[in-house]
Amino acid sequence: MERHFDEELNKLKEKLLRMASLVEEAISHAVKALVDRNSELAAEVIKRDDEVNMLEIEIDEECLKLLALMQPIAIDLRFITSAMKIGNDLERMGDQAVNIAERTLELLRQPQLKPLIDIPRMATLAQKMVKDSLDAFVNKDTNLARDVCIRDDQVDNLNDQVFRELLTYMMEDTSTITRAVDLILIGRHLERIADHATNIGEDVVYLVEGKTIKHHIEEKTK
Amino acid sequence: MERHFDEELNKLKEKLLRMASLVEEAISHAVKALVDRNSELAAEVIKRDDEVNMLEIEIDEECLKLLALMQPIAIDLRFITSAMKIGNDLERMGDQAVNIAERTLELLRQPQLKPLIDIPRMATLAQKMVKDSLDAFVNKDTNLARDVCIRDDQVDNLNDQVFRELLTYMMEDTSTITRAVDLILIGRHLERIADHATNIGEDVVYLVEGKTIKHHIEEKTK
Repeated sequence: MERHFDEELNKLKEKLLRMASLVEEAISHAVKALVDRNSELAAEVIKRDDEVNMLEIEIDEECLKLLALMQPIAIDLRFITSAMKIGNDLERMGDQAVNIAERTLELLRQPQLKPLIDIPRMATLAQKMVKDSLDAFVNKDTNLARDVCIRDDQVDNLNDQVFRELLTYMMEDTSTITRAVDLILIGRHLERIADHATNIGEDVVYLVEGKTIKHHIEEKTK
Repeated sequence: MERHFDEELNKLKEKLLRMASLVEEAISHAVKALVDRNSELAAEVIKRDDEVNMLEIEIDEECLKLLALMQPIAIDLRFITSAMKIGNDLERMGDQAVNIAERTLELLRQPQLKPLIDIPRMATLAQKMVKDSLDAFVNKDTNLARDVCIRDDQVDNLNDQVFRELLTYMMEDTSTITRAVDLILIGRHLERIADHATNIGEDVVYLVEGKTIKHHIEEKTK
């Protein structure tokens, strides 16, 4: 029974890691499609989101099965409920990547507004946060989890920078407005992805240490 | 034991309904602060988000306790895991209301751009979706749940309308750009709130009927 449970847990971990790598790829391809002006790649990202969606459902069902059959307690119980939450976060990150791909398709109908520097940087950071948050989860590594949460500020700062720069473009030349707004929204989507990775990091700390770092309640309740 | 379980479930339902009513109030007050140009009300929304955050943590812990002590199966098990997800959705809606309040504070530093019609309408719709999705959950009412999901399109359409109208403002007069972008983002926050309510509606259908209407997989697998 014990061994069977461990096997099932390992399968669950593998499935989550597979889901995360699909999401990482979706983020990277969506932004690559934007930078390379490649509409086929953008369309591919939209199409492949189904795989991510199916995996969320599979993970959910496996977790329910494990809860019902194994009736786990303590950390095993929390691991499984966390896995359900993380599956949900990953699915929503996939949706954000689809949003980026959709806005990219719109943007590609018009000439390029400017060379993109900060948006690809945000994407690289966000993608790494996704990977690390999942690694932190499967290895119950709270140092890595906390590190992911800290990196969220870098993404937020880049997003502010992108936002401000695009505002100046719009003010100087109204013909850039629709494109600039699309790029602002792409920045927001990347910021949301980083937020989801941060949620996962917070869940990992809670899982392992039983401490809530979410909403900085630690500080507030001191 | 059975009766004790029912009592605990009722307490959980009450807590979720309380959380939902705080979130509804936050949405309504954030948009009222915007319309009435009331910065104190906006600040109040930001401050009161802590209550929502604390409730999410309490709900999570109660669900874990119920899972560990009662070892529920079948619909009871799924009800509790759904409650955890819904708590998470509500918390994120609370965050979106805070985002609206923060943007409102920025907007109030400048003169009003235009009388707001569609944004308050979106807010009213989104708020009702939150209420109904929670009622659908506690009463396991799939008709109401499906109705919430359908209403998501109305919010999306209003958001598109808001977006297009604000683009024309920006193009005609560049001095409106920062305010118009803030209002576009407020529209997006309301759209996200409606998305979360839709997630809850989908969860309710899955909970009661075991059917996934998420991502329209029903249609796809036909």
